[in-house]
Amino acid sequence: MKKVVIVGGGFAGLSAARHLARKASLEVILIDQRNHHLFQPLLYQVATAGLNPADIAAPIRAQFSGVPNICVYMKRISGVRLGERQLTCEDGSLISYDYLVLACGTKHSYFDHPEWEEFAPGLKTIEQATEIRRRILSAFERAEDESDPDVQRSLLTFVIVGGGPTGVELAGAIADISRSVLVRDFRRINSASARVVLLEAGDRVLASFPASLSERARQDLGLLGVEVRTAARVVLINQDGVSIGGGEIISAKNVFWGAGVQAEKLGATLGVTLDKAGRIAVNPDLSVPSYQEVFVIGDMALVAIDDKTSVPGLAPAAVQMGKCAAENILALAGGRPTKSFYYWNKGQMATIGRRKAVAQLGKVHLIGYTAWMAWTFIHIFSLIGFKNRLVVFLEWTWSYLFSKRGARLITTRNWREEGPGKV
Amino acid sequence: MKKVVIVGGGFAGLSAARHLARKASLEVILIDQRNHHLFQPLLYQVATAGLNPADIAAPIRAQFSGVPNICVYMKRISGVRLGERQLTCEDGSLISYDYLVLACGTKHSYFDHPEWEEFAPGLKTIEQATEIRRRILSAFERAEDESDPDVQRSLLTFVIVGGGPTGVELAGAIADISRSVLVRDFRRINSASARVVLLEAGDRVLASFPASLSERARQDLGLLGVEVRTAARVVLINQDGVSIGGGEIISAKNVFWGAGVQAEKLGATLGVTLDKAGRIAVNPDLSVPSYQEVFVIGDMALVAIDDKTSVPGLAPAAVQMGKCAAENILALAGGRPTKSFYYWNKGQMATIGRRKAVAQLGKVHLIGYTAWMAWTFIHIFSLIGFKNRLVVFLEWTWSYLFSKRGARLITTRNWREEGPGKV
Repeated sequence: MKKVVIVGGGFAGLSAARHLARKASLEVILIDQRNHHLFQPLLYQVATAGLNPADIAAPIRAQFSGVPNICVYMKRISGVRLGERQLTCEDGSLISYDYLVLACGTKHSYFDHPEWEEFAPGLKTIEQATEIRRRILSAFERAEDESDPDVQRSLLTFVIVGGGPTGVELAGAIADISRSVLVRDFRRINSASARVVLLEAGDRVLASFPASLSERARQDLGLLGVEVRTAARVVLINQDGVSIGGGEIISAKNVFWGAGVQAEKLGATLGVTLDKAGRIAVNPDLSVPSYQEVFVIGDMALVAIDDKTSVPGLAPAAVQMGKCAAENILALAGGRPTKSFYYWNKGQMATIGRRKAVAQLGKVHLIGYTAWMAWTFIHIFSLIGFKNRLVVFLEWTWSYLFSKRGARLITTRNWREEGPGKV
Repeated sequence: MKKVVIVGGGFAGLSAARHLARKASLEVILIDQRNHHLFQPLLYQVATAGLNPADIAAPIRAQFSGVPNICVYMKRISGVRLGERQLTCEDGSLISYDYLVLACGTKHSYFDHPEWEEFAPGLKTIEQATEIRRRILSAFERAEDESDPDVQRSLLTFVIVGGGPTGVELAGAIADISRSVLVRDFRRINSASARVVLLEAGDRVLASFPASLSERARQDLGLLGVEVRTAARVVLINQDGVSIGGGEIISAKNVFWGAGVQAEKLGATLGVTLDKAGRIAVNPDLSVPSYQEVFVIGDMALVAIDDKTSVPGLAPAAVQMGKCAAENILALAGGRPTKSFYYWNKGQMATIGRRKAVAQLGKVHLIGYTAWMAWTFIHIFSLIGFKNRLVVFLEWTWSYLFSKRGARLITTRNWREEGPGKV
């Protein structure tokens, strides 16, 4: 029996595993460093207290409960030895494979300024989302108790770096909660006066969308009270705020990062060529050049569409790649030729605050409330599991009707009890 | 206008604040180091992946949105100066009061062995609950990937120290998830073979309940597969497990603490007499001896019922004390005499696994399924907010029907992205 190892339980890896489920000729090992699949497109909702972490996460092994040929391990992989067909694990063990699927995704890139991360967390994991939630909610709490107006102003200033979908959705949601959810709860500050600034280095937000939708997004963000600043390149981030090219300093205690991503570093251990984002340029069938038994899929893969464009780092693309890699492994195992990956562009969408969105679905462009309704239902139905769908639907209905957020919880990293003086 | 300061937003503090809401003659400051009120009786459900943290937490300031005379601050208090009628804050500021209500609750006591905490977290906060959840779920994940049978056995051994309601509920829930929820998800281990040991130093579990209910709880725990060990005094806890008096060592990678509590240390700064659990013996009207303007309520207060018994550390008692303290402050402010606290004993209950409980409601004793239904509905209706009630009801219905748990999420304390080798 041939052994397939899949590294990564995101959209791509999970899709590959599903397409290999119950193929009796193959033993499948699915490895992730976490126990859960995460629905990353809704992570900004966790960061802004709209959803619980568990609402958008599903235990990976529970997806394969009744599937005898798939084993799931929670484990960290430290390297790939292509020649020996082996993975090295952080615990020192080795895992051999006949076929390998790498689907490790991306993490944030701080453009050679790793020291910025401390002051500007990104939004890729549950822990980062709850850290951002902690910072947002704590900033209002601290501002309520602050007598120095300059410090108060800085506490109530939120800067989001990067005008892609993550940045747009985060900025819109922060503006929304400060204007609606929190506004009756404070006595000394007016939460609605919070300043929300979205910084984009390029000339428009949502650069991957058609220009008309970018413009609409900018207008809708403006109506929510978000200052959208394009051609604003960040040159420094520290505990006081953000400096942008031209000498301007924005004094802000809250900076969040949605600017750049790079592929997980496992790819670098392969010894093959990477692009500057750390992605691996794969063959048309998604295999690694010279290693037909190794497939790289999802955000880690650089898949050319034509000379200028490549497949975008979106969930539907990752799901499609997972299916293609699984089919190509079945082809190889059966002695058949592999097929090239064809990307079916399902479009893209981004929500802006609580009642608006922009969406490009093929040639159809949607804006405003219609786009938001489309966004809402597509995201609910894309979640894993009926119960998560039901819970998210209820949370959103609640939030829509009553301007409330169900997860306004500040948690800290320290679980141990503290010394004297605890209130 | 007289100023009332309430320290602590648990059951007692929140109840006091509610009874002072909209009393125009009083300005009320409610201070807690956290932004949320926590429904502690259901914390074990978060620890065992049954509920989300936010399901049993509610933002304190949202409870007083429309109440003009109550201000909420998230702040740490470091001391009380009774003579000056002032609180000292950790940030160095001072808060003066005309009336003070201390309702800081308890934390775990490790009986002069603080070094045990690292190996045996308690269950008082959201962070501790998610830490216990992380340890439980990770133990099964690590066991699946472990080849040494002794280590595997130790990973699948769960020791709970303390046979009070927390220990009983936690032990029952761990046995339940290992026997039902997880059992189809692993390939190499049988999760149902997990060993769950409940250690109690006294001669029976649930010592505060009638002896017949203790016996029934022991039997029901036994049916779930929990080893109940009474007269078992813990003498050592470390990374390998637990040693109990008589020389027996239980090899276990998972030890949880539900054995003892002590009052928060703020009480020690008052300079008044404390009992050995750190509680303050109060006057019949809940005021501190010699300081009629200072009230101590909830688990921090030692309130004698007769020579031998005192008011137990239960949520209904805390709520009643909060009301009494509020009424006595209104009496003092109006120049009227204060009233003595009368404890109306509503009874006590503890759940055992997913379908059983024991309950003492006055002279009525309930067991088994009936007690469990009573427990379920009383707890749902005691939660704050309609939405939390609805969500918890749905989660429990789901769990009851499908043997699933909605929050099987392992999260870590580190939000920052890690170095090379990340899967």
